[in-house]
Amino acid sequence: MIELYTWTTPNGEKPVIMLEECKLSYEMHLVDIGNGEQHSDRFKAINANEKIPALVDRSMGGYSQPVFESGAILIYLAELTGKFLPQSTRHRSQCFSWVFFQVGHTGPMIGQYHHFNSAAPEKIDYAIERYRKESRRVLGVLDGHLANNAYLAGDYTIADMMHYSWARIGLKELAEDGEFPSLRRWAETIGARPAVRLGLEKLQTAKDARG
Amino acid sequence: MIELYTWTTPNGEKPVIMLEECKLSYEMHLVDIGNGEQHSDRFKAINANEKIPALVDRSMGGYSQPVFESGAILIYLAELTGKFLPQSTRHRSQCFSWVFFQVGHTGPMIGQYHHFNSAAPEKIDYAIERYRKESRRVLGVLDGHLANNAYLAGDYTIADMMHYSWARIGLKELAEDGEFPSLRRWAETIGARPAVRLGLEKLQTAKDARG
Repeated sequence: MIELYTWTTPNGEKPVIMLEECKLSYEMHLVDIGNGEQHSDRFKAINANEKIPALVDRSMGGYSQPVFESGAILIYLAELTGKFLPQSTRHRSQCFSWVFFQVGHTGPMIGQYHHFNSAAPEKIDYAIERYRKESRRVLGVLDGHLANNAYLAGDYTIADMMHYSWARIGLKELAEDGEFPSLRRWAETIGARPAVRLGLEKLQTAKDARG
Repeated sequence: MIELYTWTTPNGEKPVIMLEECKLSYEMHLVDIGNGEQHSDRFKAINANEKIPALVDRSMGGYSQPVFESGAILIYLAELTGKFLPQSTRHRSQCFSWVFFQVGHTGPMIGQYHHFNSAAPEKIDYAIERYRKESRRVLGVLDGHLANNAYLAGDYTIADMMHYSWARIGLKELAEDGEFPSLRRWAETIGARPAVRLGLEKLQTAKDARG
């Protein structure tokens, strides 16, 4: 059985989407990061970095070392099922390039923007502007690529799943009306997928059930 | 022939180390980011994100789409050569977990610390302290893992190559004398590898030759 430790954040949504896309059965364990549950001894034994998501596969040949970091989890599931990670060198290397683009740029830049714009105890104009500008640049790179491509790397892959929740937040918080039209078209296509809708619904329902 | 577009930065050093470890022949093309060469039309055609490193493999079955992002480049070379990316599920998933830990945490946090501490036009205590604290936490996670493991994921892998230059900077700029002893021991082991020394020498020599 696959155990997923997650929460309702952009990084926490990715493995839920992938598990639903792969039609795998799994147990969802919520780790309320608002309550600091990621710092518990129980969770630290799963991920010493004290971050969600993490995955434990009890069927992993008698060996159930946790997999941590959303990118590693999606690659693990792609290799387990043979799905959503291209085999051809061309699309495979592009898929990895865009997966790392998300982890190294889209995520950290929008994440830091969000911190300085909404969470930090003081308004620091320099930092807000730094991350606003860089996040918008990143959204522009994605928009430019998607102007000529239906998905990020050939067909729908883990690169798209990695980006979906971050792109949605970026478009909501950092874009003007109608800006980044190709990224919007792509996000609508991804958001309409039954597995994406089902995964996000299950995650929200599980959270609501915790009250 | 493999063409590598890079510069003397932690992310730019990674593929040079991997190419030397794999004993592959390659052409090194320096992109001076101090001069803004990464924003040239010529380089934008290689990486629309205008960042080094990027790799073009002219022998890629007649198809030479550039690979961008250091993580994607190291995975591409590992799959090309069959080296430094474990096959066993246990070590493979751990290797990917630590590769993404570098790209999502070690790199962005030390990078943002460096920006606010050394490059930003104003000293913003809140931001410096935010990234100093988070970078030191990340170094502690690595140190804790390496206290019980010679390398990050079984034998020496791309996860170690991804971390080496970032860990060296982190230890130099963010650690007290003798702090993070296991990370120091690991960094000394990696730094003593002939391929690592040769790669970093070649990169520095190429930079010096440009004057």
